[in-house]
Amino acid sequence: MSRQGNRGTEGKKMNSELFTLTYGALVTQLCKDYENDEEVNKQLDKMGYNMGVRLIEDFLARSSVGRCHDFRETADVIAKVAFKMYLGITPSVTNWSPAGDEFSLILESNPLVDFVELPDNHNGLIYSNLLCGVLRGALEMVQMAVDVKFAQDTLRGDNVTEIRMKFIKRIEENIPVGDE
Amino acid sequence: MSRQGNRGTEGKKMNSELFTLTYGALVTQLCKDYENDEEVNKQLDKMGYNMGVRLIEDFLARSSVGRCHDFRETADVIAKVAFKMYLGITPSVTNWSPAGDEFSLILESNPLVDFVELPDNHNGLIYSNLLCGVLRGALEMVQMAVDVKFAQDTLRGDNVTEIRMKFIKRIEENIPVGDE
Repeated sequence: MSRQGNRGTEGKKMNSELFTLTYGALVTQLCKDYENDEEVNKQLDKMGYNMGVRLIEDFLARSSVGRCHDFRETADVIAKVAFKMYLGITPSVTNWSPAGDEFSLILESNPLVDFVELPDNHNGLIYSNLLCGVLRGALEMVQMAVDVKFAQDTLRGDNVTEIRMKFIKRIEENIPVGDE
Repeated sequence: MSRQGNRGTEGKKMNSELFTLTYGALVTQLCKDYENDEEVNKQLDKMGYNMGVRLIEDFLARSSVGRCHDFRETADVIAKVAFKMYLGITPSVTNWSPAGDEFSLILESNPLVDFVELPDNHNGLIYSNLLCGVLRGALEMVQMAVDVKFAQDTLRGDNVTEIRMKFIKRIEENIPVGDE
């Protein structure tokens, strides 16, 4: 499916439940299509990446956020503007590495997993892994290479959901980037 | 994926773009998995049905809407409360049949198709068919059997998107209903 811009359209605000169920249908379909959880995790990350690459334009247009000066500012924009806009939640930014190149997003609630319980035979499934891909793809389009992964997940028995983000490098503007 | 209630949770309001892209990923995946558009349409309807069966509970809890007295009231609740809640839009209710058993929902904009263009080799795809299934499943849970289908679709060159709904019968309460 290709994509046309519709800049200027008012954002439509919706409750998250239909999204939650649709995401569940996507994960369930991938679990049917791929042999093991690791493959599903990879597919979710890849799909997320392709979404992030597209979503960043919409985000920049809607948010009027300018270029971030450092990774701390990036972290704040992700948590307070982007998550709020597209998922309706505001994770807290915490657990900074001493070098300031790594932080965690702590999600007290995760709309993607409302109503979800992992079946026993999917212990390796990183259910919300799409989000890692979205963040990686979106940031790549603003010249930041980052590593993103789930460090904790309430679905897998942890007390909170934690996404760990690590800055890798600034990408030179002249390197073409596209769909994976 | 099974489902747990979380009644009482405040609805999270989100912009629709991440949902739009996630829905696009689901349709794209189904187009890879099934041989022809007709099969994909069926799958979308079936997935939607299973979502509707679940979503109705959430809807009744959130909206505090009581039992509708007639199909006209049902139409209004669908358009003004349900669509507004889960998709952020309010379709108009129109084209009533003389007998009052059929009407159309006219969607001036359809968040599911933002940024989407049908590829030439998918002329038979009813891209948003999930919505028909959702409506059918949700109404079945409140004892109404309805036929729901797209009559017009901007994606296929029509001027508006029109969902046609036809009342079939009231379902006796003692007939068990479940996943398809």
